[in-house]
Amino acid sequence: MEDVKDVYLTPLPESQYVRPFRMHYTQNGKKKNWDLLEVHDSVAIVVFNVTRKVMIFVKQFRPAIYYNNIHPQDRQSDVIDTKKYPASLGVALEMCAGIIDKNKSVEEIAREEVLEECGYNVPINKLQKITSYRSGVGVQGSLQTFFYCEVTDEMKTEQGGGVDDEIIDVVEKTIPEIEALVTSQGPINSPPSCLFALMWFLHYKAEQYKKSFGLYCSDCKQ
Amino acid sequence: MEDVKDVYLTPLPESQYVRPFRMHYTQNGKKKNWDLLEVHDSVAIVVFNVTRKVMIFVKQFRPAIYYNNIHPQDRQSDVIDTKKYPASLGVALEMCAGIIDKNKSVEEIAREEVLEECGYNVPINKLQKITSYRSGVGVQGSLQTFFYCEVTDEMKTEQGGGVDDEIIDVVEKTIPEIEALVTSQGPINSPPSCLFALMWFLHYKAEQYKKSFGLYCSDCKQ
Repeated sequence: MEDVKDVYLTPLPESQYVRPFRMHYTQNGKKKNWDLLEVHDSVAIVVFNVTRKVMIFVKQFRPAIYYNNIHPQDRQSDVIDTKKYPASLGVALEMCAGIIDKNKSVEEIAREEVLEECGYNVPINKLQKITSYRSGVGVQGSLQTFFYCEVTDEMKTEQGGGVDDEIIDVVEKTIPEIEALVTSQGPINSPPSCLFALMWFLHYKAEQYKKSFGLYCSDCKQ
Repeated sequence: MEDVKDVYLTPLPESQYVRPFRMHYTQNGKKKNWDLLEVHDSVAIVVFNVTRKVMIFVKQFRPAIYYNNIHPQDRQSDVIDTKKYPASLGVALEMCAGIIDKNKSVEEIAREEVLEECGYNVPINKLQKITSYRSGVGVQGSLQTFFYCEVTDEMKTEQGGGVDDEIIDVVEKTIPEIEALVTSQGPINSPPSCLFALMWFLHYKAEQYKKSFGLYCSDCKQ
């Protein structure tokens, strides 16, 4: 994954993924404008393996994170110095996720992403829709639908790791490891959607698995 | 806030806020490219008023969210039909936040945003840095630093609502209202950074305020 070289930047050509615009409008009688992007809506899935009580994450090299780790002066050079800026700077820990670019239901797309990225073949009725929210408020306002999905070792029928030329590692973390991650000082190389999903899990789901593992609530001893 | 008209789109000109690129690279011997944006790093602040036990939010019209609510066919028209698509579709509920575009410390910028947007004049040592994370993994990988800040009614020295031509409403929500928001089916017109911050608050901070309000833990009765 971290064998990355020949990194360089060019202006954005016509792109099917990123379409930038300037929106003009008049608010309360005052003319304004705002620069924004058209991006695809998406799904994100918290996958928790109840057999071994571990959360399933994906890890991949993310150019947008890598780029933002490069000092502005060094962004101007013809080729980025990958000795000074190793690829690990751009490796993100994320939930399983994907864009909605097919004419299928959000549930079906979520199911496919869990299989392709994580290798778990889950029946569609195991996907619990939690909520949906806006991916950002500044430049991208696309909708992301968030699912929770419990899996077992028996459902792991494929390797995972993505399709086509995706290079994705499947990573497992225990509940104490998740708690350590969200309470770390950072920088955490994860997006806020992943951190929201982890906090949602810790607050609404984790306690039952702690109990079943003999990790009792320190207050109630229940 | 919702008096919005004369909405139209133009191609993105040279912009100080949104600089799109295509990054080219070779990973594991395979040539790839990715479209991304250069955007400013930012701060976000959870502001909790301990006098009245309410969370302080900001509400504003967000063009990127508004745009994504418009049916793709209707995006092509010369002027967006604001009767069919009222401005309320683009009004987002968010944490106090701002971009880092001045040569000041993140703490100082956070302090200024709390004053300008929410009207609370807080000493810098009341800002507790929680963590930092990547704003996104797809097209923008800028760093957002997240603070927690407890305020009192006595610190409210200004009106808030933003500076220059910003149109921002200050909104307060109780802890039960926050719980109802994060457990709603959505779509929630908020970004995941706001939802992460709310879940973090509910999990690590809210209990003490519930107790002081006589809302006891249902398990422990503490």
